[in-house]
Amino acid sequence: MNEYKYIGKPVRRIDGQAKVTGRAVYSDDVILPRTLHAKVLHARQSHAKILLLDTEQAKAYPGVAAVYTAKDIARNDKYFRMGDTKDTWVLAEEYVRYIGDMVAIVVAESEEIAEAALRLIKVEYEPLPVVSSLQQAKEAKDLTRCDKPGNVAMPIVVERGDVEKDFAQAAVVAGGTYTFPSLHQVHLEPNSATAVYNMGKLAVYCASQMWFHIREDISAVTGIAEKDIEIKPMMIGGAFGARNDQPLPVITALLAVMLKATVKMTNTRLEEFLACRPALGMEIETWIAADAEGNFLSKKTKLLSGFGAYSSDGDAVTAIACFRGDNNYRFRSTYVNGTGLYLNHAPTGAYRGFGNPQMHFALEQAIDELAVKLNMDPTELRLKNFMHNHETSIHGFRYETNGIRECMAQAKELMGWDEKRKNKTPGKGIGVAALIHCSGSRAGKPEFAGSSALLRLESSGALTVLIGESEIGQGMNTVCTQIVAEELGVDPLSVNVVMGDTSLTPFSTGTNGSKLTSNLGIAILFACKDLKKQMSDCLRERWGIGPVEIKNGAAYGEYTGEKIMSFDEAAVKCSHAFNGRPFYGVGIFEPKTDLGDATGYGNLAPAYPFGVQMAEVTVHDNGTFTVDKIVSVHDIGKTINSQMAMGQVYGGVLQGMAGVTLESLAINKEGIYQANTLLEYKPPTFLEMPEIVGSFVETIDPYGPYGAKCIAEPPIIAVAPAVANALYDAVGIRFEEAPITPAIFRKKLLEKQRENQRQNQPEKLPENQGQQRTNPKEAGS
Amino acid sequence: MNEYKYIGKPVRRIDGQAKVTGRAVYSDDVILPRTLHAKVLHARQSHAKILLLDTEQAKAYPGVAAVYTAKDIARNDKYFRMGDTKDTWVLAEEYVRYIGDMVAIVVAESEEIAEAALRLIKVEYEPLPVVSSLQQAKEAKDLTRCDKPGNVAMPIVVERGDVEKDFAQAAVVAGGTYTFPSLHQVHLEPNSATAVYNMGKLAVYCASQMWFHIREDISAVTGIAEKDIEIKPMMIGGAFGARNDQPLPVITALLAVMLKATVKMTNTRLEEFLACRPALGMEIETWIAADAEGNFLSKKTKLLSGFGAYSSDGDAVTAIACFRGDNNYRFRSTYVNGTGLYLNHAPTGAYRGFGNPQMHFALEQAIDELAVKLNMDPTELRLKNFMHNHETSIHGFRYETNGIRECMAQAKELMGWDEKRKNKTPGKGIGVAALIHCSGSRAGKPEFAGSSALLRLESSGALTVLIGESEIGQGMNTVCTQIVAEELGVDPLSVNVVMGDTSLTPFSTGTNGSKLTSNLGIAILFACKDLKKQMSDCLRERWGIGPVEIKNGAAYGEYTGEKIMSFDEAAVKCSHAFNGRPFYGVGIFEPKTDLGDATGYGNLAPAYPFGVQMAEVTVHDNGTFTVDKIVSVHDIGKTINSQMAMGQVYGGVLQGMAGVTLESLAINKEGIYQANTLLEYKPPTFLEMPEIVGSFVETIDPYGPYGAKCIAEPPIIAVAPAVANALYDAVGIRFEEAPITPAIFRKKLLEKQRENQRQNQPEKLPENQGQQRTNPKEAGS
Repeated sequence: MNEYKYIGKPVRRIDGQAKVTGRAVYSDDVILPRTLHAKVLHARQSHAKILLLDTEQAKAYPGVAAVYTAKDIARNDKYFRMGDTKDTWVLAEEYVRYIGDMVAIVVAESEEIAEAALRLIKVEYEPLPVVSSLQQAKEAKDLTRCDKPGNVAMPIVVERGDVEKDFAQAAVVAGGTYTFPSLHQVHLEPNSATAVYNMGKLAVYCASQMWFHIREDISAVTGIAEKDIEIKPMMIGGAFGARNDQPLPVITALLAVMLKATVKMTNTRLEEFLACRPALGMEIETWIAADAEGNFLSKKTKLLSGFGAYSSDGDAVTAIACFRGDNNYRFRSTYVNGTGLYLNHAPTGAYRGFGNPQMHFALEQAIDELAVKLNMDPTELRLKNFMHNHETSIHGFRYETNGIRECMAQAKELMGWDEKRKNKTPGKGIGVAALIHCSGSRAGKPEFAGSSALLRLESSGALTVLIGESEIGQGMNTVCTQIVAEELGVDPLSVNVVMGDTSLTPFSTGTNGSKLTSNLGIAILFACKDLKKQMSDCLRERWGIGPVEIKNGAAYGEYTGEKIMSFDEAAVKCSHAFNGRPFYGVGIFEPKTDLGDATGYGNLAPAYPFGVQMAEVTVHDNGTFTVDKIVSVHDIGKTINSQMAMGQVYGGVLQGMAGVTLESLAINKEGIYQANTLLEYKPPTFLEMPEIVGSFVETIDPYGPYGAKCIAEPPIIAVAPAVANALYDAVGIRFEEAPITPAIFRKKLLEKQRENQRQNQPEKLPENQGQQRTNPKEAGS
Repeated sequence: MNEYKYIGKPVRRIDGQAKVTGRAVYSDDVILPRTLHAKVLHARQSHAKILLLDTEQAKAYPGVAAVYTAKDIARNDKYFRMGDTKDTWVLAEEYVRYIGDMVAIVVAESEEIAEAALRLIKVEYEPLPVVSSLQQAKEAKDLTRCDKPGNVAMPIVVERGDVEKDFAQAAVVAGGTYTFPSLHQVHLEPNSATAVYNMGKLAVYCASQMWFHIREDISAVTGIAEKDIEIKPMMIGGAFGARNDQPLPVITALLAVMLKATVKMTNTRLEEFLACRPALGMEIETWIAADAEGNFLSKKTKLLSGFGAYSSDGDAVTAIACFRGDNNYRFRSTYVNGTGLYLNHAPTGAYRGFGNPQMHFALEQAIDELAVKLNMDPTELRLKNFMHNHETSIHGFRYETNGIRECMAQAKELMGWDEKRKNKTPGKGIGVAALIHCSGSRAGKPEFAGSSALLRLESSGALTVLIGESEIGQGMNTVCTQIVAEELGVDPLSVNVVMGDTSLTPFSTGTNGSKLTSNLGIAILFACKDLKKQMSDCLRERWGIGPVEIKNGAAYGEYTGEKIMSFDEAAVKCSHAFNGRPFYGVGIFEPKTDLGDATGYGNLAPAYPFGVQMAEVTVHDNGTFTVDKIVSVHDIGKTINSQMAMGQVYGGVLQGMAGVTLESLAINKEGIYQANTLLEYKPPTFLEMPEIVGSFVETIDPYGPYGAKCIAEPPIIAVAPAVANALYDAVGIRFEEAPITPAIFRKKLLEKQRENQRQNQPEKLPENQGQQRTNPKEAGS
């Protein structure tokens, strides 16, 4: 595996220095002449009818350029084009439906003036019943919005095989109802955008995962043709799915058009919580049927997902939750009934894993429960049922490489699984969960299934990769330089990367689905090969040199193998042959995948990553627990950048930890967020970080670049069930609801103890449960 | 001529709205995080040895990041690569040689801190003799710089034909010695640059006429390879040649590299006067020999040009002055002896016309004098001697189109020349001067003779022209949109133009020599044709549609002529055929021109513009004069944008007026500028503006786009001699020295009157001289 010079190595991030020295230019750093500033009036009511909305005083405030409400916006109902539900507006019309719903916008000479004027807007509301939970939404006695009777945003019902028959034949059935909260992506950089209108054209400086997609959104709302809109990409301070569907740049662009001006808007942290697109909370009832030997037969699932008051990416996220996890195991049949429900909560959307962590929280606990019932080692039960390579899964996934068994073997080794199961330490527990994800999946645009890349060679020898995707912190820009450096033999630091200016790059469906390395990487590889061929052709046809092979930073005689000239000399010669024009190597990767049939059946991704995550926990005498260690082993196909891949594992595990132990964006019965500042909604810091042991299985996928699949999303996916299973191992309690906060943990622990005492069996704990440690020192304190 | 939809029309400037609303982003508008600010210590001595340079106090000043002097700069002698003389340094080493010479640089957290620290630098000088005039430099008793004995920066001596023989055969000889001052280009926007160093790479935000050239300069001084430097083009507030050779961006880039930081520097107006590259002042002795019928035989010229203390573009400017003007007339022989001389003055370089206005001031007055001696109408004398079409001039220019006779006819008509010569009004005078220039000329890079353009078609239908030249106010960006609109039938406002990001565009030798419309215009035309062919091929090969012709914003059946689909639909289809990748139409124009032999002989330009300019003046009783009217008629080949072309005429004439009536950047005997603020160095305003009557002769050049040649430089070239000739017509005095300020005019007028009185012939004035008006009313006041 040591054949590569740059691939698989810890090549330095090309944006690292700018970021750590504070010189990176984020959207809010954009300062343009004569800029107007906008602030939004967000609803303070969860559900209410607007009785009065009086902006006169605000309009009269000195320095205010405009105050807009829904009636001022010609295309108020064109927001967003995303999803088919078309149930969202730019500004609230008759009703507000969540705390944060947008009611009015002030544009002024400064942010301070805009804020002052906001306070002069008079709004009167007639409160309406609030739908705050999935069960309440499902009952549909109260409506989240009066235009949606039943509160149903989307239904999915799919059965493959004969589920009832398989359940009837089952020796064991295990499962339950598992609840996963709505989570906020909490990227460190709040949304900010600056939009410049000029003679019918629009330039929008912002951060996005999907430059071309946001251009569509902006076009829909402003009525400006896409070809007249340029999205100017700024450095991005995190995304994690939250920058798939972004109200802020769209509204900023609209204001620039309405005022024929330059307009800037930047969210505060509170506005990030109120008016963005957090993840869907879900309630998942799932049951697995197996025969007496532990062979899985069937699975049935009822899933409720919380869409918030309007639809964003909820439909796609819910679909992933319904189908993805099943593909990791051999099932004869499966049934899923998924319902997206409107809640008086912010619209929900994409978050790392895209519905898959929610389902894995349910599925991997149900399997754990099944192992308990079968009295099997949960790793053995999984190994028995994992899919094999070249098999086709129940939903149509076909695996060219499947390293799940190697992942399990490594994870067991790294955790000391067998030893720890054999010699249990009181107060300690270990848990396992497996995962499957995808390296991209066919997006909604059938005509753009893959990725395209251009590699520009300029007369100075400068190489520039032009791609339409985003660098969202994952390090794709550095990966681009590694691939070009590997193929051409140049220094990776000398390769330029332009990611996402819609006027400069190829079209792209964006940065999502962990697809960049696998899909875009191949496109870049193709672009390198194309450029090398063009250079070789030019040297032969125009200069009578060669045939040559371009490699190792030089042109070598194809037959002699002798070095003829350096890469830079060859670049100058080629460019001079055409009067200094640049060359464009073109790389297009169109994966041979299906779009999926009406039931979602099909081979959606060019490759599938697998993984096994294990957790070790300690339960303390004071009724708290800590996660001591997470082992995270991933079938990555091939590691492209060893340091950045491990960074993805650390980040993903930490975010997984957050979901299972700390975070929840739930609303209470009044529709008020229980947490919407970083004091209350606590992302994990180094203090909450367990020991993380990451490792990779390199299966060398035949389609990926150098065999790579992906690593972006997987590390978040199975952390929560691994922790929950470890806690079960420690205390014999199924934590079916996340997050498992200290309060909840303590409460359940006390309930359990009380129950045990009621049964007069204080010492008899369930199997697999560790003993509570009694530390004499601590007891005395 | 009305066959075009957009060509020749007053299509709106695409940058107009941004400029007039103050929203255009100029270099000084660039505000980046964590920027350091630099200020230069300029010498206050014209010529001195540096005895002491103590920066310790400045270095210790709080907030100062660094203070640099010459010894800190590793590649201090690599500045500039321009010209072969290699006689310039980044910072002065042992000596300072003009007021403004750069001695030290402070980099600090703010501009204010940098300025405060500058004042703490101690410098002691030993004054040396100052060379302040061309005659003094020529005598070479004093040296401008001790390393250049003789003060000679460059010599040119060329003779074609037998000049002595032709002069011996002449019936009439006329001429004299004419002096034209050094002028400052005074673009409204001062130089500003921000340079960002990041991991071995450099991005420089600045304004330049030559993006790729300044990249070379920066590479030479910083040692960073060109391929690792990106020049980010900003909106440019005027250039006029001053942005060919720019110390400021180069130094800013160097500081960013030395400090591994982001550094910004912005000139004050005073610094613009002190440390930029104004035009060369010249002293030109020229004589023309003619036969008795007025047929020109020969010309001989001795030319001294003022280089300043170091060399910039002086050699090229001096060469143009030596050769260009001769080509407008039929000569049997010509001799030129040109000498570039060092002066203790700022280094001099390019200014609109590039040496040609200086020579025209001499040549066209000498011809006027010849007409006096021959007692011929000066328009007739010129018409007799103008070159004809398809002739080759004495220096090797070959004319495909030459509209000089039509220009003369139109100018006479617009001035009412014949009528005014017949019926002379006392106190009034009219003058004529003809001009020739070029539409580009082969630059120093033989391998890049022409221009290249890319036309990018994106899946949305967006069209983007990518070119390496600069928009310096001349309106080339708008011309790009007109050509694309004309060729493809789309709205010009929908065409995007990227001018000059070195990481994005083709290589270019820059914006100079009035070459953009003629050379680049063709390249864009070719790019349009290439794109249309690619689209047609794609539709046929990938979609089975066509063959089609792309025109009028749609695809038409090539045989049927029927509209098959809109341009945007065709764009989407083509892009979808290749997974959304953009198409690049490539246009390369390589003019069939010569590089010139060692004597400068050759056909240097693809086309040559001609023109005739006339002035009408009034001499007032109080001894002042006003220029009432300038007629400016130009063989433009073909007008591309009627409004912008006329704008070029207005601007050029006004700058020509400035040179002949207002401006001079002369130094006195102490080497001190007589004017270096906008109060003392007065550019003309609307108050000084005469009536300007512009007109165009469309000769439809076979090589230019739609027949276009150029209009950028010509309108400045012959204004000064036309005004001088008109003054001669009015008062019988040859003003051989420009500028003809009120003081000089009055002095010469009084001298003339006194001489007339001495000769006791108070009423007998020279022929062609208007009477001084005696207005009873004014006489009484």
